[in-house]
This record gives sequence, C-alpha cells and structure tokens, in this order.
Amino acid sequence: MIGKIFSVALFGESHGPGVGALIKGCPPGIKIDEEHISLELSKRRIRDPRVSTQRIEPDEFDILAGIYKGYTTGAPILIFIKNKNIESKHYEEIRFKPRPSHADYTAYIKYHGYNDYRGGGIFSGRITAAMVAAGAIAKKVLEKFSIEVLSYIKSVGDIELNTDIPIDKIREKTYLSPVRCPDEETSRKIYEFISKVREMGDSVGGIVETIINGVPPGLGDPPIDTLDGDLAKAILTIPGVKGIEFGEGFKLSRQLGSDANDPFIIKSGKIMTMTNKSGGINGGISNGMPIVFRVAFKPTPSIYKPQRTVDLKEMRETTIRLKGRFDPCIAIRAVPVVESISSIIMTDHLLRWMAWEKYLEGNR
Amino acid sequence: MIGKIFSVALFGESHGPGVGALIKGCPPGIKIDEEHISLELSKRRIRDPRVSTQRIEPDEFDILAGIYKGYTTGAPILIFIKNKNIESKHYEEIRFKPRPSHADYTAYIKYHGYNDYRGGGIFSGRITAAMVAAGAIAKKVLEKFSIEVLSYIKSVGDIELNTDIPIDKIREKTYLSPVRCPDEETSRKIYEFISKVREMGDSVGGIVETIINGVPPGLGDPPIDTLDGDLAKAILTIPGVKGIEFGEGFKLSRQLGSDANDPFIIKSGKIMTMTNKSGGINGGISNGMPIVFRVAFKPTPSIYKPQRTVDLKEMRETTIRLKGRFDPCIAIRAVPVVESISSIIMTDHLLRWMAWEKYLEGNR
Amino acid sequence: MIGKIFSVALFGESHGPGVGALIKGCPPGIKIDEEHISLELSKRRIRDPRVSTQRIEPDEFDILAGIYKGYTTGAPILIFIKNKNIESKHYEEIRFKPRPSHADYTAYIKYHGYNDYRGGGIFSGRITAAMVAAGAIAKKVLEKFSIEVLSYIKSVGDIELNTDIPIDKIREKTYLSPVRCPDEETSRKIYEFISKVREMGDSVGGIVETIINGVPPGLGDPPIDTLDGDLAKAILTIPGVKGIEFGEGFKLSRQLGSDANDPFIIKSGKIMTMTNKSGGINGGISNGMPIVFRVAFKPTPSIYKPQRTVDLKEMRETTIRLKGRFDPCIAIRAVPVVESISSIIMTDHLLRWMAWEKYLEGNR
Amino acid sequence: MIGKIFSVALFGESHGPGVGALIKGCPPGIKIDEEHISLELSKRRIRDPRVSTQRIEPDEFDILAGIYKGYTTGAPILIFIKNKNIESKHYEEIRFKPRPSHADYTAYIKYHGYNDYRGGGIFSGRITAAMVAAGAIAKKVLEKFSIEVLSYIKSVGDIELNTDIPIDKIREKTYLSPVRCPDEETSRKIYEFISKVREMGDSVGGIVETIINGVPPGLGDPPIDTLDGDLAKAILTIPGVKGIEFGEGFKLSRQLGSDANDPFIIKSGKIMTMTNKSGGINGGISNGMPIVFRVAFKPTPSIYKPQRTVDLKEMRETTIRLKGRFDPCIAIRAVPVVESISSIIMTDHLLRWMAWEKYLEGNR
Repeated sequence: MIGKIFSVALFGESHGPGVGALIKGCPPGIKIDEEHISLELSKRRIRDPRVSTQRIEPDEFDILAGIYKGYTTGAPILIFIKNKNIESKHYEEIRFKPRPSHADYTAYIKYHGYNDYRGGGIFSGRITAAMVAAGAIAKKVLEKFSIEVLSYIKSVGDIELNTDIPIDKIREKTYLSPVRCPDEETSRKIYEFISKVREMGDSVGGIVETIINGVPPGLGDPPIDTLDGDLAKAILTIPGVKGIEFGEGFKLSRQLGSDANDPFIIKSGKIMTMTNKSGGINGGISNGMPIVFRVAFKPTPSIYKPQRTVDLKEMRETTIRLKGRFDPCIAIRAVPVVESISSIIMTDHLLRWMAWEKYLEGNR
Repeated sequence: MIGKIFSVALFGESHGPGVGALIKGCPPGIKIDEEHISLELSKRRIRDPRVSTQRIEPDEFDILAGIYKGYTTGAPILIFIKNKNIESKHYEEIRFKPRPSHADYTAYIKYHGYNDYRGGGIFSGRITAAMVAAGAIAKKVLEKFSIEVLSYIKSVGDIELNTDIPIDKIREKTYLSPVRCPDEETSRKIYEFISKVREMGDSVGGIVETIINGVPPGLGDPPIDTLDGDLAKAILTIPGVKGIEFGEGFKLSRQLGSDANDPFIIKSGKIMTMTNKSGGINGGISNGMPIVFRVAFKPTPSIYKPQRTVDLKEMRETTIRLKGRFDPCIAIRAVPVVESISSIIMTDHLLRWMAWEKYLEGNR
Repeated sequence: MIGKIFSVALFGESHGPGVGALIKGCPPGIKIDEEHISLELSKRRIRDPRVSTQRIEPDEFDILAGIYKGYTTGAPILIFIKNKNIESKHYEEIRFKPRPSHADYTAYIKYHGYNDYRGGGIFSGRITAAMVAAGAIAKKVLEKFSIEVLSYIKSVGDIELNTDIPIDKIREKTYLSPVRCPDEETSRKIYEFISKVREMGDSVGGIVETIINGVPPGLGDPPIDTLDGDLAKAILTIPGVKGIEFGEGFKLSRQLGSDANDPFIIKSGKIMTMTNKSGGINGGISNGMPIVFRVAFKPTPSIYKPQRTVDLKEMRETTIRLKGRFDPCIAIRAVPVVESISSIIMTDHLLRWMAWEKYLEGNR
Repeated sequence: MIGKIFSVALFGESHGPGVGALIKGCPPGIKIDEEHISLELSKRRIRDPRVSTQRIEPDEFDILAGIYKGYTTGAPILIFIKNKNIESKHYEEIRFKPRPSHADYTAYIKYHGYNDYRGGGIFSGRITAAMVAAGAIAKKVLEKFSIEVLSYIKSVGDIELNTDIPIDKIREKTYLSPVRCPDEETSRKIYEFISKVREMGDSVGGIVETIINGVPPGLGDPPIDTLDGDLAKAILTIPGVKGIEFGEGFKLSRQLGSDANDPFIIKSGKIMTMTNKSGGINGGISNGMPIVFRVAFKPTPSIYKPQRTVDLKEMRETTIRLKGRFDPCIAIRAVPVVESISSIIMTDHLLRWMAWEKYLEGNR
C-alpha cells in the first residue's frame, strides 16, 4: 500500500470491469461530495484530440464503502471506476509481440503469461484514474490544514516553462491549458509541438513540476521513512516515470555548497530560508518551505511507427505496427496524477506527524 | 524498514556509542567472514586528506546476533559499528545555530529539541557505515545468483565521465581511484577539482551511477511495490541525495518515443533489448537488461565559509562559521553506500520473486 | 492487511452497497471458477430458521479485478459482494442506544459519530462474507500443495463434541449439519439447544475447532511473525471471537512437562511426534504435524430480551428491545470464516517459506 | 516488528553475545533513567532456586542509540543486554537430539541446520529480557497518560487465584511474591507446588492474567488491526504461550447472551459497563473499561526426566536426558514479559489513535 496510516491500495485492469482504490485510515467526518471526485477525475481527461487519446472515458464511479451521508466514516473507503469505451480486439494481434519499452514483456514474464494483456492490463494509464480518485479524498484531508498540492507541466520535449509563475496563476490556469501548462505562451508552443508529434505517429516525454504549500515543518520519519523517499516511491508507481528530483535536484550536483545552501532568515517572526534550493526538505523532513520536485516522464512507448520486437511464442524477431488509441504525451495527462499521489503521501505523513504532536501536547 | 522479506533497520548517532543495522529475513547458511564486511566498510574511507574529511574511523564492528560459526543462521543479524575519533565540543557552539541546508533545523523542530545534535546525530553521514555493513550481507546473498551491483562517480561539479567504461574496468578501478571514478583521466580531473574546492573551504556535489548486472526478468511487485520505486525510496535515505533517474531518465523527457524505445531482439537465444534507455526496468519490473540509474548528491552543506542563519533560542538572525571536519564532496564517499542500499533492495526483491517462482514450479 | 506476501484487505458495511476483499500477491495461473467461490460463500448460509437469522442473502459477487479467463493474473484481485435483503429502519431507533457488548458504542466513540451504524456497519457479521470470498482464493493456492484447512463446531454452550472424529468424516459431514458439527448426535443436541435458545429470544456462544493437514515443517517467521501469532491476529478480526488456543492450549497450563511434551518418533521414515499436544507448532514454526486450534465465540450480543443501556445523545440510562434479525449462535456461522481466515494466513506463510527454500535450492 | 508507529524488533541468541531490542517511533523528550530499565529487568529474575533456574544473569545493558542526556531523542533506540553466565557445552551433546515440544526441531528444519542451537538460540527465554527492556520504554510513554499495565499469576497447575484482588494489592504485592502472585496464600501454595515439581525434575504450566487501566475508549483499528488481535499476535511471540482469551474468554462460549452482555450505565457522568465480561474491548476497539486478558503458558519443555526423541543425523529413535539449567515454571518468569509486550502494543495504539484525534481537533 502507499502510506502507513492513511494508505491506498490500487487494483483493476485497462479492459476489465474497471479500476479502483481502497483507502484506509482516512479520519471520519470529512465531507466528500461526489462532484469533487468527479471534478478531480475530469482533470485527467483532455478532450482535445490533437494532443490526447480518443479513448475518452466518462469515469463514472461508485463509492462502495466508507462514505455515509456524504461524510467519511473512518472505515475503509472503496471507489470503483467502471471501464467504458473499450476496444480490445487489437490486443489479440499483439499479444505475443511486446511493445518496446512498454510493460508487455515484463508482465508476460512475471505473470507467466496469465496477465490480462488487453490494453496493457494493470500497466495501462487507466490505473491513474484510481490514483486520482484516492487523491481526491486525500486533498480533502489536507484542505482542513490548508496544505495545497499544485502540479503542472514544466517542459515537453525541449520546450520549457522558464519564467516564474505566481502561485495564483498556477492554481487558476493549469487546467485551463490543454497541455496543463499555466503559462499561456509556453502552453501554446507545447500544444503545437505535441500536435505535430502526434501527426507524425510519434510521442514525446515531459516534466511535471509540483509545489506543495502550507506544509508544517517536521513531517517525515527518518532514518527510513523520509518524506522525499516516500514521495519518490509513490510517484514511481505512476506509469512512465523515469526520474524525480527535489528542489534544484540534479543541478545541485554541479554546484558548490556556498551556492547550494539555503540561508536561514526570520520573516514576520517565522524561520524561513532565503532561497529554496533544497525544495522544502532537509534530512528527509519538511522544513516549512514549499516542497518542490520535478518528475520526468518518458514518451508514451505506444507509437504508430513500425518497431522491432520479438514474437514470444515463436521466439523470433519481428516488427509491430500499433493500431490502438494512445496519448502522444502522457506527461500532460499525468499532471493531476502527480498531484494526487503527492496528496496521498502528504496526508499520510501529516497524520503520522500528528500522533507525536498530540502525545507531546499531553506531555507538557 | 528497508525491504519486506529481507529487511534492514538502521540506528545510531554520529557522536553516540555507534551506528548499526538490524537485518531480518536473511536466508541461513550464507558464509559471512568478517573480512568481507571490513573490506566493504573500508570502501567508505578515503584516506586522502585533499578530498576527504580528516575524521577517519577504523569502523570496528561487532556482530551481535544472527551469525554463528561464520554462517548466517536465519535469525535477525545485528551489526554494531563503534564510534571512535569523536570531537563534539564544536557542536555545543552551533547547537542553536542550524547549518543552512543541513538537517539541524528540521531535527530540532521534529524532535522538539531533544535530538542528539552532536555531529548531526542520525543525520550524519556516519549512518552510512551501517548501510554498508548491511549491504555487505546483501551482496553475499546476491553473489550466489551472480547478481552484481557496481556504483561509481559519474560526475562531480561539471566534470563528467563521458566515455563508455567496460564493466571489468569499473569493477577493478573504481575503488583504486581516490574519487571513485573508474576512468583515470576523469578521476584525476575530479581529484584536482575537489582539492581546490576544499582549499576554498567550500564543497561540491556529484552524481553516482549504478549498474546492476545479472538480474533475472520479473523482479518488482506493481502496482505499488515497483522495483524502481523501492530503489528510489531506499536511495533517498542516503544523506545528501536530491534526485534519482533510471535509464536515460530526465533526458527521456526531451525525446520522441521513436528514439526512446528499446527494440526487442533475440541474442544467443535470449530476449534482450537493442538499447537500454529504460535502464532495465519496464512497468516497475526488471526486464533482464542491466539496471542503470543515477543519483544526484548535493554539495556537503557543512562548509567553512561564513553563512547566514538564525539563533533558534534567541530568535534572531546571525552567522555561523564552522570548525568541524567535513567532506568536501559526499558523493565520492557515497559510492559504496549507493551500492549497498541497492544490494539490499535487490536481495529483497529477489527473495520476493522466488516465493512465486517456487510456488509455480510446484504448480506444474 | 492480513498477510505479507499474500495479503488481504477488507471493506464494506452491512447496509451499504456491499462488502468485499482486495487480495494481493496471489500467484498467477491458479484456476478460479466462480462456482468454487459461490460454494464457499454458501457455507456461511444456514437456511434453517430455527438456528439462524432470517436475513438470507444470495451473496452475488463480482470479480472486479485480477482474474482473467478463469485464472488468477498475478495482479490484485477484487471481489465485491452486493448487499441485498436489507432492513435498516430499525437501526434509526437504536442509533444512540448502543447494544450491550456490541461495537455500537466503541464505533460511535472512535469514529466520532460518523460511522455507518446501520446493521452494525463494518462490525456486522456481513464482513465475514468478504473473508470467505478471499479464503476461497487462498484455498485454491493451498490445494496445489495438498494443504487442507477443516473447521467445525467443537461445542455450543455446554454441549461438546467429545469423541474423536476421523478426518474424512469431518470433511464430509460438517457442512451437512445445520450447526456445522460433523458428529450426528452432537449435531442434533446442539441443534435442539440453539432452537430453544432462539425461542427464548436469547443467544449462545460456541467453540470452533480447526485442523490443518499437510503443512510442511518450517512455516513461521520468529521472533515476531510466528505462525501462531499471525493466525491469532487474523482470527481475532472475526466478529465475536474472545479467545484462541493452540494444541491443548489452556489445558497445558495445568499440566506437567512430562505429560505435555510430544515425544519425537520416526514413522515410515518421517519424523513425527507421538502426540500432538503442541498443535503442530513449536517456537512459532510448523513442525509437520496437523495444526490444531480452537476459537471461542461469545454469544451474539444482539438478543431480543430487554437490556439496560444508555442514550448517548441525552446521556441518560435507558433500555433497548431489539427488533432486527439476528443469529442465535454466530459460532455455527463462523465455521467457514475461521477456515477462510486460516487459509489466508497459511497461504501467506507458505509463500514466505518458499522464498527461502527457492533461494537455498539455488544455493547448493 | 511489533507495532506500527511505535514499533519493536528483537534480536539475539541465548548463548551469543547478547539479546536486544530496536525501538522505533518513540516520541522525543521522555525521561528514561537506566535504573528504571534495570528495575524492570530485575522483575524477570527470581532468585529463589526452589522455583527458578540457577542461570541468574545480571542483565547488564547498553543503550547504544536513541537516548541522549537521559531523554528519548525521537530516533531509533537500541538496547543491548549482554549474555553472561553461559554454559554451552551440554548443548553439543543434544545438538541433533531435539527436545520434545521445544523449538529445537523446527529451528533445525527451518534454518537448514545453521541455527545457533546453543541454549535454544533465539527460542530461548533469554529473548524475553529484550522484550522487557523495550517494554520499559513503552511503560514510560504510557505513564504520561496514566495507562497502567499489571500482570500477575492467575494459576499454576490446578492452583488458581480465585479471590478478587484489589488493584492496589496487585500493584504492590505481585513482585514481592517469588511466584508473582499477589495473594499471599495462593502464592504460598503455588510456591510449594513448583518446588515439588522441580524436585521431581519436571515442569508445570500456568496462566498469567493482565489488567490494563486508564485506556481511553477508541483504541484499535478494525477491520484488520484490532486491539485484541494486535495484543494476541504480540503475546504469542513470548516463548511458551499456547492460548489467550479476553474478558471471560472461553467461558463466554458456554454462556447465553443475556448473561454475557455488559449493560451500559452512567457513573459520575461517564459511560461505563456494569460488568466487564468483554474485557474492555468491543469490535476490536477499547471501550474505556479495564482491558483484561489471560495467557496460557505450557510447562517448560526442558525437563530432567528421560524423554523419547530422534537423532536427526542418524535418523533413528533415541532418548535424551537433559543436564542444563531450566525453569520449572516459565509462567512465573513471564509475568513482566506479558506486561512489557502489552505495554508496547498499547503504546502503539495510543499513538495511532492520537493521529486521528489531533486531526479531528483541528477539524473543528
């Protein structure tokens, strides 16, 4: 499961009955209206066929447990999202011809050929709907403590968002952009680029940046359960992720300490850092500054160009030419997913931190 | 704990009695001689004062449980490494003056001032000795199945190892280099650079690359316990890590699918990929190719230049000037640590994978 | 979750949409036909109104994930059992009047009044349908290794099954008895007794005994994850359980060592024990003899006699008189539940054990 | 590990360097003086050779991590207790002759003969010293919230403590009795009985009863992590335990609901139950009444009478006659161990409960 006190398990296949999430440890009494979950799920959908797949799903969901009269009960919550709009027939053709860099081959090996290969099975981006549904609950838990998680596209291919965007603009503009980039000009450029890539039958990667505001200092449980470690593990459950960096990340590896360190200052009676190159985490513990990290998504492995592969049954080399419906850039659809997974981890660590804090209050 | 079946817990402070590791789930009957552990621990020591701290510790250790007559017993193993050569007095001076970008401040907040602040307490690089001791056991488990984990310096500052180094050379040369870089010329450049940085009283970051050979396809337990996710979480327990990327990592975010995908081929009757841009993992599961990842280390936050900070007791801004003994580049000392932590995760996933494999054998 | 490699999570409320189980870590390629699950679920139903509740549910279920073309895929399995035949109105009346010895009060406190109180919510016996569904999968995993779990009624009230029943008879007769007791005479007596208790508007407790055959020696992971400890924890998730004892259990506390010890002997070339007072477990590890334990169920707390309680809203003492539909003896309905929960734990420990065994084979 | 937030791992062998406990998640700032731990450890020692083993150990311990200047730091705590007074030579003789009902045989099988067999290795009662040391920390955590765990001998053989003993007397008298029974007359009878058993070269079982006072209602995390389930699993890690029952336990299986239920009443403005047959737990959650349970210990399997066993090497039947130093009744030495293990679980659930409570406070 993702998380220890507030924890989430995932299930479901791309072309089976549906996907879903089991959420344990959610405190009782949190108002959850179905519209909120629907709204979150809608962030995964991009209705513009020039930059997104034509498999548009309504994401109808059922809350099968744990919510009563519109409030969390404290018992395990189960959200189930039905699959609709399924086209499986193409997958029979490629069943034994694994798509390069997809999980087709590793799934075949690990599950000894018994995996539900249609649409990628559990390895499909479809599972991210369940992540977003669980994240919708987590966001409500964080909301009461004014913790806000904002993700957006930082770059696609070589097109990068370079200007500093004020937090309000990020909040307002990200989901108005068809490519989830809060800056209009960059958004337009990325949009054109993805459209072109799609026309070429190709795909492209991208980077999602996340800012988490309002985090109190003290979250994270080193030496093992560090806040950044738990975020990294959870983020890597999202299909297509190949890297994560906190604060200035890899750039710090090229810097001197005198440049990289964040000096402490006092501002309106509160300890802060002048810069935030550490991305809000030191020693695996939040330091009160915004948590910042970037996640690298590879290009969708499913492309329309012919590719070399092997026939697993006949054990010979061959080629495939895909015919299904694929996203030209999963990064842009992953924006709310990164937000959701991050919200789950933050909720878990918030509750873990509260256990001690409550104890220590009584301690005085 | 790191790991689920083969699992490791860590404990100990920089200036307390020592540091150590508790290792559970290690199969019985594995020969462990103390020299092997000593040798692994020695890889953490760099005796050249121009690139390393002057706190050189003998790393004397005691095996307090779980090994009998030179073999693992199957019971929990406890290895304890005594602290020697401690100089704590300087830490009293800076107790309430947190070092920028170190865990001093977050520790103070999280532990309500009760943490052992001397030498950074549990946040010291000292804890990595325990990681290496545990990794020494894990390496022995992997050895029987010819799985080999090799880490080395990929870059320090802007100096990067760019040529392809054959695996044999990596194995032989890495620990002969005082900066853990298997290429002699790059090693020399990095050595000079770190020396210069050290003379300036500054520090510098670096990147550690890791290659894991001999991994059977099928390791990793998605949707949650992916192999890369578990590696990432564990690697982030190492002090100073700010990012991790698998295969081509962040570079993939700038590529097209047609460039990024690894075509499948058959070579000597075995399925392989032509390229390895995925770094040996697809869908969170090993694909049989070498696992490759890079870890970004920030510069040591402890530098000798004066820095702005705050006085936590008097709640006012101030400056500190450190006097202790620090590494100018933790990345070079972290090479065996990355190797060790990776070995722990690989051992855990190897055993987890074996549970099913054994069952499925009987299944036939 | 129950279990570590093969693990089960539960969800659902008595009067909500349904109950269910999420099963992780089940090996792929295990044939699961829906009839098998239906058959197992039917064991929970006792259609005789003289000894059972009139809430008879068809237990229609949906497999929402993890099974494809009739075989487990290796991915998480989700089984959902819809609630039918619900009568909730009575629960509004008693919402603030907790039933003595039921979880009404503790649920109200823990969940701050937000729990779904109808029908006892998650504390209803209804959740045991999910346990049985998960157990049906586990039994299939065990079947391949000829491990068989058999539970049956040992006693109800003071009526006890005293004669030794051959294993074949237990297997054949238990579920033919309306009170799940394989001995016809004892079954008849218990039947009459429960009928009488039911007519009186009262309830009665009972003891379920379990025998697990075919367990290889070596299962169990001390010092913490002992086989008996894991069984005990899992069994205590079943509503109404107040005690568990292994082998001769509490009786051993009154015996001398010379009577209590099980001497080792060799029989057909195999090491066995002459007696089995230890119940097949020593030091938390299976010893190859049948595992035997007994579970004490208290009387159903819901009885028709008037009872003293308090009004939680008005904070005054009052009385309640229940009108719902309740079992006069939950023990008899719990027989397949104990079997199922035990099967889950045995499956988990079988797989955990296999991890080492597979490793050690390669070791030679 | 035992526990989820406050968690304990154990290690060490009977005749190795020592035994110990790793304690994670202990809040910072709790005063721990070494005398307190020493005092707790001394409760395990019974210096009267007529009822106890002659292996009396000083239980010198080292705190190797996590406590600084007499206070917990919040970091993992490691306590190590050295083994002294070891006599191993006898164990060579019986190495391949497993003691009936001891873990010698199961350890040999599970660990493929690599286990440290001397003195029973990890299966020795020696490990309980580590349990008590960890419990000493847990008791300090509970103390701040006035939660008190009291264990004592309820029966040995057929001699039972039948009178109701006031809580003050239990607190004061238990450890003054050489057999840990707070009632003087029963204590005397038990003392005489154990002495006689010991003279006969035999051993005897017993029952330890535990009362936990001051527990707030609401502790326990159903449906899986019930308070009683977690207690049961943890208690079963103690060597020699064969059963556990809560409240009236097995007796409830013979009762009617109208007798077994605990009516709710209001006393000094607080909701309580008139009786406490449920033992303070309903639905896996504490109800505010004292938690009461009984643990059955079998007789020490090591007795001086000749016993049938097998020679594992030569695969033939044989007999053994033990010569070591053994306790005639482990139950009496287990009293502080049950107390300690229970304290660990209560601490964990107290902290888990606080996470939600703190959240819900902020919620208002």
